[in-house]
Amino acid sequence: MIISMKPEATKEQIEHVCEKIRSYGYIPHPIYGETRTVIGAVGSGNNRAALQALEGAPGVESVVAIRQPFKLVGRELKPQKSTIRVGEVVLGSHQFVVIAGPCSVESREQIVATARAVRAAGATILRGGAYKPRTSPYDFQGLEEEGLKLLAEARETTGMRVCTEVMTPEQVELVERYTDILQVGARNMQNFALLKRLGNPQVILCERGIRTFETMTRNTLDIAAVPLLNEISHLPVVVDPSHATGKRSLVAPMAKAAVAAGADGLIVEVHPNPEEAWSDGAQSLTFQEFELVMEGVKKYLPLEQKHL
Amino acid sequence: MIISMKPEATKEQIEHVCEKIRSYGYIPHPIYGETRTVIGAVGSGNNRAALQALEGAPGVESVVAIRQPFKLVGRELKPQKSTIRVGEVVLGSHQFVVIAGPCSVESREQIVATARAVRAAGATILRGGAYKPRTSPYDFQGLEEEGLKLLAEARETTGMRVCTEVMTPEQVELVERYTDILQVGARNMQNFALLKRLGNPQVILCERGIRTFETMTRNTLDIAAVPLLNEISHLPVVVDPSHATGKRSLVAPMAKAAVAAGADGLIVEVHPNPEEAWSDGAQSLTFQEFELVMEGVKKYLPLEQKHL
Amino acid sequence: MIISMKPEATKEQIEHVCEKIRSYGYIPHPIYGETRTVIGAVGSGNNRAALQALEGAPGVESVVAIRQPFKLVGRELKPQKSTIRVGEVVLGSHQFVVIAGPCSVESREQIVATARAVRAAGATILRGGAYKPRTSPYDFQGLEEEGLKLLAEARETTGMRVCTEVMTPEQVELVERYTDILQVGARNMQNFALLKRLGNPQVILCERGIRTFETMTRNTLDIAAVPLLNEISHLPVVVDPSHATGKRSLVAPMAKAAVAAGADGLIVEVHPNPEEAWSDGAQSLTFQEFELVMEGVKKYLPLEQKHL
Amino acid sequence: MIISMKPEATKEQIEHVCEKIRSYGYIPHPIYGETRTVIGAVGSGNNRAALQALEGAPGVESVVAIRQPFKLVGRELKPQKSTIRVGEVVLGSHQFVVIAGPCSVESREQIVATARAVRAAGATILRGGAYKPRTSPYDFQGLEEEGLKLLAEARETTGMRVCTEVMTPEQVELVERYTDILQVGARNMQNFALLKRLGNPQVILCERGIRTFETMTRNTLDIAAVPLLNEISHLPVVVDPSHATGKRSLVAPMAKAAVAAGADGLIVEVHPNPEEAWSDGAQSLTFQEFELVMEGVKKYLPLEQKHL
Repeated sequence: MIISMKPEATKEQIEHVCEKIRSYGYIPHPIYGETRTVIGAVGSGNNRAALQALEGAPGVESVVAIRQPFKLVGRELKPQKSTIRVGEVVLGSHQFVVIAGPCSVESREQIVATARAVRAAGATILRGGAYKPRTSPYDFQGLEEEGLKLLAEARETTGMRVCTEVMTPEQVELVERYTDILQVGARNMQNFALLKRLGNPQVILCERGIRTFETMTRNTLDIAAVPLLNEISHLPVVVDPSHATGKRSLVAPMAKAAVAAGADGLIVEVHPNPEEAWSDGAQSLTFQEFELVMEGVKKYLPLEQKHL
Repeated sequence: MIISMKPEATKEQIEHVCEKIRSYGYIPHPIYGETRTVIGAVGSGNNRAALQALEGAPGVESVVAIRQPFKLVGRELKPQKSTIRVGEVVLGSHQFVVIAGPCSVESREQIVATARAVRAAGATILRGGAYKPRTSPYDFQGLEEEGLKLLAEARETTGMRVCTEVMTPEQVELVERYTDILQVGARNMQNFALLKRLGNPQVILCERGIRTFETMTRNTLDIAAVPLLNEISHLPVVVDPSHATGKRSLVAPMAKAAVAAGADGLIVEVHPNPEEAWSDGAQSLTFQEFELVMEGVKKYLPLEQKHL
Repeated sequence: MIISMKPEATKEQIEHVCEKIRSYGYIPHPIYGETRTVIGAVGSGNNRAALQALEGAPGVESVVAIRQPFKLVGRELKPQKSTIRVGEVVLGSHQFVVIAGPCSVESREQIVATARAVRAAGATILRGGAYKPRTSPYDFQGLEEEGLKLLAEARETTGMRVCTEVMTPEQVELVERYTDILQVGARNMQNFALLKRLGNPQVILCERGIRTFETMTRNTLDIAAVPLLNEISHLPVVVDPSHATGKRSLVAPMAKAAVAAGADGLIVEVHPNPEEAWSDGAQSLTFQEFELVMEGVKKYLPLEQKHL
Repeated sequence: MIISMKPEATKEQIEHVCEKIRSYGYIPHPIYGETRTVIGAVGSGNNRAALQALEGAPGVESVVAIRQPFKLVGRELKPQKSTIRVGEVVLGSHQFVVIAGPCSVESREQIVATARAVRAAGATILRGGAYKPRTSPYDFQGLEEEGLKLLAEARETTGMRVCTEVMTPEQVELVERYTDILQVGARNMQNFALLKRLGNPQVILCERGIRTFETMTRNTLDIAAVPLLNEISHLPVVVDPSHATGKRSLVAPMAKAAVAAGADGLIVEVHPNPEEAWSDGAQSLTFQEFELVMEGVKKYLPLEQKHL
């Protein structure tokens, strides 16, 4: 931690902060600059919060952490890439994993037909939402357990693995009975009760766009996050070009860019008839469009020593 | 809904969209412009989602909702301001309601002493966190049920009402046993399972800062949201200048600005000894500082026909 | 400057950085932490850029400046508030200065009538755009010199002072011939050639809204910027509630909030007939609406020891 | 334009708006919905600003433009891709154009050595800043005309073409005497005086990162902008992975992603000794690192039917 004192801080205030730091089990290292003093607090104390609270002490301007507070997922403790096995699929390996399917499960015909089509084109994991975290309570909320059963049926029929979103701690038991990968949506990234319930080290990161001022795409695909995550974390990283861009025509170029950037896989929205999709029609591909995307991806994979 | 067609959309595509609109129970109103056609969809159908899905239809550029999708909280259906009664306190009335207390409940001494001090200065509702939604799992997570009991004890001692944050549907039963107002934090604004569990029409809106590129304050207090919400919604609106700014010295001017902007009340962080607060020390006021804030507020209230 | 080394940085890399720091005239203060080393660079060298370039040195993770790079406008060097005199008007004093007028100068009748009306209601400085920095080249660009002459005429007629926007270094000579305060718009905040041409220490800061994700107002009025600027800078601060909110109905509450927050003045858009304004009609007040705003402001001023 | 009336708008207000629309040379098409009326304004009138001003009319809620206000650069009027010739280099063709060089021109040795190195690796255009738009007046501002002369000398020596930033209308004459492509930085994107002075149809678009909340990269490379611009505009698009990410290690993967996304070229920062670069050291590549980037790019180009 670096505690930066105000320019007008007195000697007593600086000494008071140093004492506090010591009392929390850290060693203070004051640096007396031209106009202000900054104090480094060094040590392995377990009292980050107490140091942070020094922001409330007289004469303190700010308290800044130097070290990023993620240990378990960082390369510092585990330098080699993690692989995550889902049946025969291995994320984080030379296998490039394509997860595809509709935004929402709507009917047996829809999900089974989609599973067959995306499997034929090279996808190995089926996606489909049974619970939909819609902003408006007036919007469609998903088929719920019925949707989970349809996903499991499509899995039986095609031999694919299944990935679906879970929204509450209570849903977890039911959802994991029918599916293989549990997806946490952006709206639940800080739903700590859900995260605790799911807590297991087999985590797949997904770049699905960030919120920006750009309005011509739904979100902004932060493609540089892929190599950056590969540097600082050992977890596999997949890219969702459908959700990130919100535009069907951008899925193909972004899928190729994801391969080039070093992604371990893709998530793509596919629907038998996008204009009648119950959600996200504008970004869903037809079966034929998905085939074209996969053709492009297949050409790029060898350059990155990857294969489907 | 306004469906905007692409400039190159064909007659057949426009007619296809019009037919779809009719099939969903709405009436299409195409407007043929110089370079493109836009189609208004009018009616009281319950099929917003189907209209939205037309974004996936050939020739469609975008689908935009004209009407804001909030009905129950809008002034259109309920023009007069709502009042919410919490014991003798009435939010949304001429009473200006001050909610004050520490970020986290830390001990009996801390919460009872704070309750006494803020009550003496004019606050009528005590705040204090028993569950803390901290980003880092390594940080302090709150005293949990023990904290709730201490809040209830402070309530007994002082006669104040109590407001505290709830984070999961399961906590609700326990939390409402000990407290009067259940607070939903920013991180749970889209935790739909929690929102459904809490669902009741007695909602108090709180402006506690929005995320912006400004870095000198913790968040940006969107003070214009107060009169704006007063125009479009009938719900009471309170302002949290502590959390919004993250800086002790800004609480007093922002509290006065909130009164001037028409707020129904304030939430203010107060701690017996901010430099040792377990969370949010930099923005917590001492008892004496809180008294000064209340002095300023009291001078402004008569100009807005309000009183404590 | 704080130079933070990567966790895997070698002793040689750390020593190399320390040497570089010395060679630029600063003293390195390394702090050896558990997982990484940070190096403070202390001294009055004039080589900030060279220190910053150490971001490119092997083993360096980041270089962060502790001191904010504004000296001349800071309270550190000049603790007392600056006052700026424009005729009888004194910004930064107990006088609360109201600048009012149309977005664009459109005609003699329009600007003279507006000047009379706003003067009668308490404004002392007339605003009006002669050059308009419009995003689209197809939009109205202002009356240019003709507009400046009309402003000067309105000044003659009413005795008000005049404030108008200047967009290029070449315009400065002409604009200052006709007007008293030269306004720099948000689009030119980093137009360094213009800023250099204008360079003089009599600067008035204006909070006119920042860009955020909130869409119900044009910009977000960052009202906390007012007391914050009053803490760190000695310059006068005015608030523009018209441009910041983009909504006529929000001008009155935001004008009062600005007084409560400690502003030195206001800029308000007023137009004889907003629905026919050539720009910014939605946020312009009629003469009568402006009078009501000023009534509210006048009631608040005594609480802040200010007067018109 | 779509003029959306408030729910409580009266018949008279609606009719008043329709009359205004007619008086400006457009045809009003009101659509009477369940809760509100929206009015489409159709026609080729040249009075967009007058329609926009209706936001100020009684009963109007908002005025929204349906058509994007860019005509000259859109595919609607010019469907085929534009090519821009700079000597033997042709942007917008099957030639993939690599622009490389230091952030700032610092000395003859630096710029000539860099030109030779990047040319050998496949770059055809040299970049280098002679005028630097630095936020702080205390920072290095560029070698100015001396820098331009050094760029011209490097051009003589290597046969490369030269690209450099121009910041004011006055600089244009001097800068175009020494260089081939004039670059407009992000800070000058709305410096209309500069844009007018430069006005010519041979424009190259550059994606160099957008401002977002992501802090681990300098900006966020909006890679989806490349195929999006290729859809809506006929202008060539290049990508600057150095400036967009601010991190040397991300330049290689982002350069490949740019090829995959359909870019027409790249701009890359290269410096003989990044740790002593006068600006942007953290993102500059050494000569050897640049060679490796180019090796990756060369492997990808054939997949997109491009060549150096």
